[in-house]
Amino acid sequence: MNKLLIVGTVAFDAIETPFGKTDKILGGSASYIGLSASYFQTLNGIVSVVGNDFPKEYFTLLQNKNIDLTGVETIADGKTFFWKGRYHNNLNSRDTLETQLNVLADFSPVVPENFKDADVLLLGNLHPSIQISVVNQMSRRPKLILLDTMNFWMDNSLAELKEALQLVDVITINDEEARQLSGEYSLRKTAKMIADMGPKFVIIKKGEHGALLFHKEEVFFAPALPLEEVFDPTGAGDSFAGGFAAYLTEQDVYNFDTMKKALIHGSNMASFCVEKFGTDNLVNLSKKQIDQRLQEFKKLSHF
Amino acid sequence: MNKLLIVGTVAFDAIETPFGKTDKILGGSASYIGLSASYFQTLNGIVSVVGNDFPKEYFTLLQNKNIDLTGVETIADGKTFFWKGRYHNNLNSRDTLETQLNVLADFSPVVPENFKDADVLLLGNLHPSIQISVVNQMSRRPKLILLDTMNFWMDNSLAELKEALQLVDVITINDEEARQLSGEYSLRKTAKMIADMGPKFVIIKKGEHGALLFHKEEVFFAPALPLEEVFDPTGAGDSFAGGFAAYLTEQDVYNFDTMKKALIHGSNMASFCVEKFGTDNLVNLSKKQIDQRLQEFKKLSHF
Repeated sequence: MNKLLIVGTVAFDAIETPFGKTDKILGGSASYIGLSASYFQTLNGIVSVVGNDFPKEYFTLLQNKNIDLTGVETIADGKTFFWKGRYHNNLNSRDTLETQLNVLADFSPVVPENFKDADVLLLGNLHPSIQISVVNQMSRRPKLILLDTMNFWMDNSLAELKEALQLVDVITINDEEARQLSGEYSLRKTAKMIADMGPKFVIIKKGEHGALLFHKEEVFFAPALPLEEVFDPTGAGDSFAGGFAAYLTEQDVYNFDTMKKALIHGSNMASFCVEKFGTDNLVNLSKKQIDQRLQEFKKLSHF
Repeated sequence: MNKLLIVGTVAFDAIETPFGKTDKILGGSASYIGLSASYFQTLNGIVSVVGNDFPKEYFTLLQNKNIDLTGVETIADGKTFFWKGRYHNNLNSRDTLETQLNVLADFSPVVPENFKDADVLLLGNLHPSIQISVVNQMSRRPKLILLDTMNFWMDNSLAELKEALQLVDVITINDEEARQLSGEYSLRKTAKMIADMGPKFVIIKKGEHGALLFHKEEVFFAPALPLEEVFDPTGAGDSFAGGFAAYLTEQDVYNFDTMKKALIHGSNMASFCVEKFGTDNLVNLSKKQIDQRLQEFKKLSHF
């Protein structure tokens, strides 16, 4: 099986939505990406950092999904990254109520030996210098490098972000952030400008409105599945990225046509993620559920 | 050829977008619907009203597109409906700067004899009592009746709107308005509640984010084509409705599968509409342009 290396946060989240609230639960980009990727025929490993307060049961949960945690460092006298947020009624926007960087403040990722030859590398949303440091630790250039980022790094570390973009093949970014990064409103123009910064494939995420994949003059659109209930959008973008990257790793083909299918697989995983709080739905899916919903995506958009 | 009867406004618009502004130009829902429908193999007629200030050249323009204007009444001492608006920078929202109802205030539509047996009836966005009066004038029940509406009628004439909804097969409505009408946020639930009010087919328009078609447990999504430039969104929804209704009229098949294709044809016409000011692009399209872009829609969403 091919190897997918995931770099990102393993964290605590406390979430409020119009439908309820949680105490500290398992969160973090790498957790969502890893759980989403665990439904594909790939070897998945995480590089991250936690504190001594991180519960053993969460390690077990991830390991039961065959996620390799060799690269997750535990800082003996540190506390785990914590994020607390409240979603607005429409679930499309949220306020951050609290952020404790804790062990993330000094995070210096170390890629374990067994994943230095990963076929695909997914750089979750982190400081671009951390993302670069991981690329530099690989023993060979991965067949595909994906990078996720956010407006915070554009505002505070733009030079480093631009350096990181030179190293990657695919960027995933949301529509507002893409417009901020390019200074263009038209998403078609935006994608071209971002591609000029490095990534040959540009994925623009539009939340409940789906996602666009741009490559040269080509464009593909994956809709989000209209769901009866959306409980909690936390992790949707990461589940999407996890499904996208893992499908490509599994197929071991990295062209536009395969990426179209990968985009649908990513949207599929995201659709499960948002139906329950946190990672609740991602830990308990069956192959049958996943395959059935893929058919719904086909019915949704083929004419 | 089958007949499509269009009821709506024929009007003057003055438009400001970030890219420029126009004086009074041809506008109105029926104008956009008619021009969009003129690219299909159908007999299209408009029922509307204008004032004595309405220029002959606009009549000629519509007639040159083989649109039957027998049902467009000219009020000798009246002035044509006028709307002036300004779009915000993102083109997704706009302010109405001026509305002069003029002859529309006393509009009492009269369906001409030659269109009382229309195969398809499209009720453009107007007072629901006017929409009902047109249905009642038909000599036979059309094979399909479509209704477009907006929040203004929900706020001011909800009882009449609900009466009108009992009479129609298809409603086209935007996402915010659908949520207002149903009181539900989930579009899937929203569509079910609106279907319970009458229309078996519910189309929810999401502007640049595409459109959804709901029917019983089925759902289909038509993306909007990502364009290099959007100049002026005015008339996009009407061009969409015109293409949708005219394709069905041409095919003379009114089931879910045909409606999927119709939704793409509608989105296709809307994509042309927004590329220039007002109706400028809709009056000069070639069959080849239209067919080519339909292929782009296929490439955009088939995987």
